[in-house]
Amino acid sequence: MSNPFETDLDRNPANYQPLSPLTHLERAALVFPDHTAMIHGTLRRSYRAFFARCKQLASALADEGIGRGSTVSVMLSNTPAMLEVHHAVPMTGAVLHALNTRLDATILAFQLDHADCKVLIVDREFSELVRNALAQAKVKPLVIDYDDPDFPEDAPFAKGPCIGTRDYEEFLAGGSEDFERRAPVDEWDSISLNYTSGTTGNPKGVVYHHRGAALMGYANIIASGMARHPVYLWTLPMFHCNGWCFPWTLAVLGGTHVCLRWVRAKAMYDAIADHRVTHLCGAPIVMSTLINAPDAEKRDFSHTVSFNTAAAPPPESVLSQMADAGFEVVHLYGLTETYGPAVVNEWKAAWDELDPAARTRMKARQGVRYPALEDLSVRDPETMQPVPSDGETIGEVMFRGNIVMKGYLKNPDASAEAFAGGWFHSGDLGVMHPDGYIQLKDRSKDIIISGGENISSIEVEDALYKHPAIQSCAVVARPDEKWGETPCAFVELKPGAALSADEVIAHCRSLLARFKCPRTVVFQAVPKTSTGKIQKYILRQQAREGL
Amino acid sequence: MSNPFETDLDRNPANYQPLSPLTHLERAALVFPDHTAMIHGTLRRSYRAFFARCKQLASALADEGIGRGSTVSVMLSNTPAMLEVHHAVPMTGAVLHALNTRLDATILAFQLDHADCKVLIVDREFSELVRNALAQAKVKPLVIDYDDPDFPEDAPFAKGPCIGTRDYEEFLAGGSEDFERRAPVDEWDSISLNYTSGTTGNPKGVVYHHRGAALMGYANIIASGMARHPVYLWTLPMFHCNGWCFPWTLAVLGGTHVCLRWVRAKAMYDAIADHRVTHLCGAPIVMSTLINAPDAEKRDFSHTVSFNTAAAPPPESVLSQMADAGFEVVHLYGLTETYGPAVVNEWKAAWDELDPAARTRMKARQGVRYPALEDLSVRDPETMQPVPSDGETIGEVMFRGNIVMKGYLKNPDASAEAFAGGWFHSGDLGVMHPDGYIQLKDRSKDIIISGGENISSIEVEDALYKHPAIQSCAVVARPDEKWGETPCAFVELKPGAALSADEVIAHCRSLLARFKCPRTVVFQAVPKTSTGKIQKYILRQQAREGL
Repeated sequence: MSNPFETDLDRNPANYQPLSPLTHLERAALVFPDHTAMIHGTLRRSYRAFFARCKQLASALADEGIGRGSTVSVMLSNTPAMLEVHHAVPMTGAVLHALNTRLDATILAFQLDHADCKVLIVDREFSELVRNALAQAKVKPLVIDYDDPDFPEDAPFAKGPCIGTRDYEEFLAGGSEDFERRAPVDEWDSISLNYTSGTTGNPKGVVYHHRGAALMGYANIIASGMARHPVYLWTLPMFHCNGWCFPWTLAVLGGTHVCLRWVRAKAMYDAIADHRVTHLCGAPIVMSTLINAPDAEKRDFSHTVSFNTAAAPPPESVLSQMADAGFEVVHLYGLTETYGPAVVNEWKAAWDELDPAARTRMKARQGVRYPALEDLSVRDPETMQPVPSDGETIGEVMFRGNIVMKGYLKNPDASAEAFAGGWFHSGDLGVMHPDGYIQLKDRSKDIIISGGENISSIEVEDALYKHPAIQSCAVVARPDEKWGETPCAFVELKPGAALSADEVIAHCRSLLARFKCPRTVVFQAVPKTSTGKIQKYILRQQAREGL
Repeated sequence: MSNPFETDLDRNPANYQPLSPLTHLERAALVFPDHTAMIHGTLRRSYRAFFARCKQLASALADEGIGRGSTVSVMLSNTPAMLEVHHAVPMTGAVLHALNTRLDATILAFQLDHADCKVLIVDREFSELVRNALAQAKVKPLVIDYDDPDFPEDAPFAKGPCIGTRDYEEFLAGGSEDFERRAPVDEWDSISLNYTSGTTGNPKGVVYHHRGAALMGYANIIASGMARHPVYLWTLPMFHCNGWCFPWTLAVLGGTHVCLRWVRAKAMYDAIADHRVTHLCGAPIVMSTLINAPDAEKRDFSHTVSFNTAAAPPPESVLSQMADAGFEVVHLYGLTETYGPAVVNEWKAAWDELDPAARTRMKARQGVRYPALEDLSVRDPETMQPVPSDGETIGEVMFRGNIVMKGYLKNPDASAEAFAGGWFHSGDLGVMHPDGYIQLKDRSKDIIISGGENISSIEVEDALYKHPAIQSCAVVARPDEKWGETPCAFVELKPGAALSADEVIAHCRSLLARFKCPRTVVFQAVPKTSTGKIQKYILRQQAREGL
């Protein structure tokens, strides 16, 4: 029998339009044309001007044949150009590929070839590196130099040479403000490409779609508690999951982007005090930079600033110091494959009453699904059954919903593996607490198996972080003839602090079961990625190959 | 050539889930289980309990064969049962049809037959009326009585008899909390049916889908500036565009619904003061009720309350009195066909500096597209060209986007007409201001054509409202041998006020061109619909058939 509710009630242009973050900017330009869309050094640009420039850039790119199916790669810091490409490239129907500016030339070359880069926009901070990459790559893109007029005078690095055939401003000026956007045709159309910083093998190209990027616009606002006209400081690299989609999100509320080329304490405090920044995001290293800044670089501010952090649970001492400094810390978790954050530690008012240590334990949990994520689960990857919600049984964290990637570019096998059983497999191990909050226990490869017992390296690191002299640390497995593996701790001390290996081990024994305590302690700087993630694979290799 | 960004990157359950407001409630039950989801009289119900009851009700309905393609009709006030059906009915795959409780038995019978009602849930306040409707209807639904245990003791009407074969609580108790929802299969699946209060001919059944209702969850939050845990007072009937989708919206932020059977000043002030209501919605009549309440019924409150109003631009005096009383008024506009509000008067801080009259003029404009609406335009319905943005050229207000209805149920001709040219035709006439804000000038049938000149009845009403003795008014066309039509004003005076027709006309002449001033003034109560809209068709008939 026919269903009258599904008869003669079809999609048409009046009642169905593809979801896209491009509509967010269009609305902002209409509703808030005079509001400041971005601040960069001495530059102030309104939403009217921002939108007009994006259309010009899109028009100029389209004139070069860029459109559906082509890739525009960019090697840019958190500058106005980086904000513009986030809108202009998708307007043409093309895909934005933001390169991680800390990678080496070989990996950059691999990415440019794999992505089949047609146009490459390069900030002069990175021109030498990109020249090397292009020398190794097979593709021959149109190269456009971006010469930032607000390049700080006190920059730690000099500008490199021009390596392209066009100048960004001149190129953009050749486009038309009347450009009509060509995408998306379907909300499933691809909008961007972000390579994982895979620790083994070649990086994988994670593809996002317009639908997910549009929904992140709403989800980020809700998770971050943003009100109209937020002021957002760009401490999170936009090459990292498209800056967790905030380049698109801010348009929904007519927010102001405060650009930032380098994450330094003085610039951050100046922006917060001078521009009344309401929100910023970053790895724990950014919080350390804020907290440990010399007094001369700190500024007073009277408003509360919301700091979204991810990558590692914030230690107790960091949380309390951040609170003292006027920051409210929101703990998020996600992966490149989930558009950035897809899990939020939804904080409950009742937890404010807990003692500091208990509060930190609650804050350390990754949390619950993001508003736009349809499902989050911890499952046995073999049976695909959810683990019991006991806070103890370890399983793999899995995601399902509209802010999960389309898949890996030109890698159907990896995509199929990632989506096995109808869930995205994160590769992260965790538990489900009785109240429905998840907590990471480790990445599978970070589990240390010692004498048949699983040791969570996070748990050992948490114990280490409780020591007041420890600035940064990482624990990895060290091969051991007797035990199989033993925990090996790499420890970076605070400036001026002193500590012996025995003292470190004794400290851990006061907090942990004996088998979990490090057998080896190495004092050295802990290597981190550009986004502040500790590079455990380097340490793992070090522990394996001899210390 | 194949496009690698659209190859081997297809939808699968991990990366694509149908949008639905049902996921909002599921998340709220997971994240905020102990938070109060609803307050009704002495009742407090948590999100855990709310969700469990919805699943039970859905299970009980499914046991009766309710599912995809069936209709559940309800005749309910703004009670807990009304909130529950908004979630439980869609969980089964069925469509919710909320009857307007102010309609007469004949129209109710028409709707029940047209909707092919299978189950009808009836509050005992309306049982006599529904019994009459059922006597006229062809359908023979399962009738369930809802006997509200918190029916106010001071109710202006007595409860009617039980007319069904089942009791709501007993029926619900027979369902299982473990029910797994069956919908949506596709986000385009229908979720609800709302009949227009068409002034001519049979009402049309407007069909909403899960996709639009889910997106309204985000759009309402952004337009209303809602933060986490809003407290929402139910002054807007939920049978009106599903309460502008707020029954679903509040779950996104774990908000508290404060139920309200009747819109009376004392109950509103008590709720605001006792439950710290943050938001409420309603027609201008609700604002009048608040402002004109006797002092004994008013309560002090220290927080700002946001009042979303629609249906008519708020007059200056109302705005200033509302501000004095602690309310912030947001002016919205939309239609049943647009899920309720689809246009918002986005207020700019700069406008706060204007003098009161200029502020009111800015506030009177309907505004810009809602966050989840993709496009809003004022067009010539013949040529489909946009009118110039001059604030003067009148055209038809048109909508395009994902919060426009699927169409009219079993009425493909009306749907095709409404969607002609790829835009939804509102039937409302308006202008586009240079800054992109639209303003309604009139519904086409409300234009008075006098001596070949168009007169906007809204403009004349605005002038009338400036008179301090006038409580309510409406202007319609009166047939005239000489002029074709002349404006006829129906005027309701404030209690104790006195005014002559000549004084009314003289007042208008001081503000308007002479040809726009009423030729006839009738002093009488102005008839309004249950949602506070003035019933101009009654007055038009009165003006036509003799006064």
